[in-house]
Amino acid sequence: VSRRVLVTGAGGFIGRHAVAALRERGFEVLAAGRADGDLLSPGAPERLIAERRPTHLLHLAWNTEHGRFWSASDNLAWAQASLALYRAFVESGGERAVFAGTCAEYDWSQGICREDATPLRPATLYGAAKHAVQSAVSAHAAEHGPPAAWGRVFFLYGPDEHPNRLVPAVIRGLLAGERVAVTHGRQVRDFMHVADVGGAFAALVDSEVTGAVNVAGGEPVTLREIVSTLAARLGREDLIGFGERAAPAGDPAVLLADVTRLREHVGVQPRYSLEDGLDETIAWWRDR
Amino acid sequence: VSRRVLVTGAGGFIGRHAVAALRERGFEVLAAGRADGDLLSPGAPERLIAERRPTHLLHLAWNTEHGRFWSASDNLAWAQASLALYRAFVESGGERAVFAGTCAEYDWSQGICREDATPLRPATLYGAAKHAVQSAVSAHAAEHGPPAAWGRVFFLYGPDEHPNRLVPAVIRGLLAGERVAVTHGRQVRDFMHVADVGGAFAALVDSEVTGAVNVAGGEPVTLREIVSTLAARLGREDLIGFGERAAPAGDPAVLLADVTRLREHVGVQPRYSLEDGLDETIAWWRDR
Repeated sequence: VSRRVLVTGAGGFIGRHAVAALRERGFEVLAAGRADGDLLSPGAPERLIAERRPTHLLHLAWNTEHGRFWSASDNLAWAQASLALYRAFVESGGERAVFAGTCAEYDWSQGICREDATPLRPATLYGAAKHAVQSAVSAHAAEHGPPAAWGRVFFLYGPDEHPNRLVPAVIRGLLAGERVAVTHGRQVRDFMHVADVGGAFAALVDSEVTGAVNVAGGEPVTLREIVSTLAARLGREDLIGFGERAAPAGDPAVLLADVTRLREHVGVQPRYSLEDGLDETIAWWRDR
Repeated sequence: VSRRVLVTGAGGFIGRHAVAALRERGFEVLAAGRADGDLLSPGAPERLIAERRPTHLLHLAWNTEHGRFWSASDNLAWAQASLALYRAFVESGGERAVFAGTCAEYDWSQGICREDATPLRPATLYGAAKHAVQSAVSAHAAEHGPPAAWGRVFFLYGPDEHPNRLVPAVIRGLLAGERVAVTHGRQVRDFMHVADVGGAFAALVDSEVTGAVNVAGGEPVTLREIVSTLAARLGREDLIGFGERAAPAGDPAVLLADVTRLREHVGVQPRYSLEDGLDETIAWWRDR
């Protein structure tokens, strides 16, 4: 029996890796990206499902515009379109749906986020809109099926990330020989290579796990460690200015994921070490 | 300047009272009920806003079918339609929106529910779908406006309630001289007369308060007290069988509302005492 998975946001940062990993797992991938039209236009989600008739759904598409997505007005439209897409999928007889959620759904004062224990208290419009979809979809799936899982993405990095995000910004600055101003760097985070994130979503589609699952590497790292590693690899520790930039308001000291569900229930182990992942990312920017 | 409020669910249990109270406050009421078409059909919310051009929105409509609404599949469609309605209202230049939420959004293990402190952990599809709308709408309103408030309804009663709900069922049984089997009755709840609930929503529309507001009377009462009062008024204490019916699974011992926001910020005081409200409800059923 053919398993046909519709992937929205298939051309995105995570989507490209998820598509490759789903193909490796034997899925027929129905990729939907920006070229397939705007998912936010009225009736578009319903038409997409009617035309592609997927057995599985991996919904990654959302506004991810760097620096703007946190408070963009269209987060509301994305929530509405996501509910429309899921409803059309359910009504078409779809078998299993997986969505991209976010660590921004959690109360960030809690340190280590656990799917079934940490309060959900999004502090941003993006987090609230994602959480809205999770609340409605998870409850509907639990009551009526088909099964659905919700992968909460933490921090990620890798080749071809938006140039203004932390890792690319540091690499680009150092390659250009410019001084790089960063925050104090003591923030403890969980960074996962984007290929591992895409692989985790493919595994989640291919599993029977339902509900929320943190998608993260499970290895705490400080931002200082990441920046220092990049600087050491490029031999330009002299250019880094820790503390020369203010940390954003509300920036939590520790924001980590409990990855028990991902590791033990979904069976995902990251393939990249942080060192290998950063080396690969440096190499990618060198080749630009 | 004319204030034109679109009321969805205007013909419903709460809606009829909200409409009357809004007219008393000088609003022009654009009532939308079932006769105006199905809000769940594609494009219907957008058409409703385009045709009526309200300055204010009071969105009460939802699936409220007794015994079925908690887990009905169309809770998802109602969440989607509610987001669509709000987006259309925002885009049309609407000034203020108020929504009907539910105590079922809260974690029911907490006893007294406070808007800004009690965790939101809906245990039902209905609660999760309502909460989905609240999460997205409140965050959007806080970030971009127009202002929005979210009235969380607790327990209510009054004339013309669905005949199978607690108060009407007891009255009807006693009036018919039948034995009435009820649960142990020690559950502590907050019951507000439906006219006071409608009045509270009108006051919320007419206020500048934003975010979640509990809509409740603030007076704890046991179910035993309510049932005993009805039996005493009807002189048929002999027909009541406390404990002859099992309480539903997960029925919380105490489920109350902190009404500080409603009382002090919105300025609402209930007009009905429980005794007067129950007497009026008995009289209504006698006249059937």
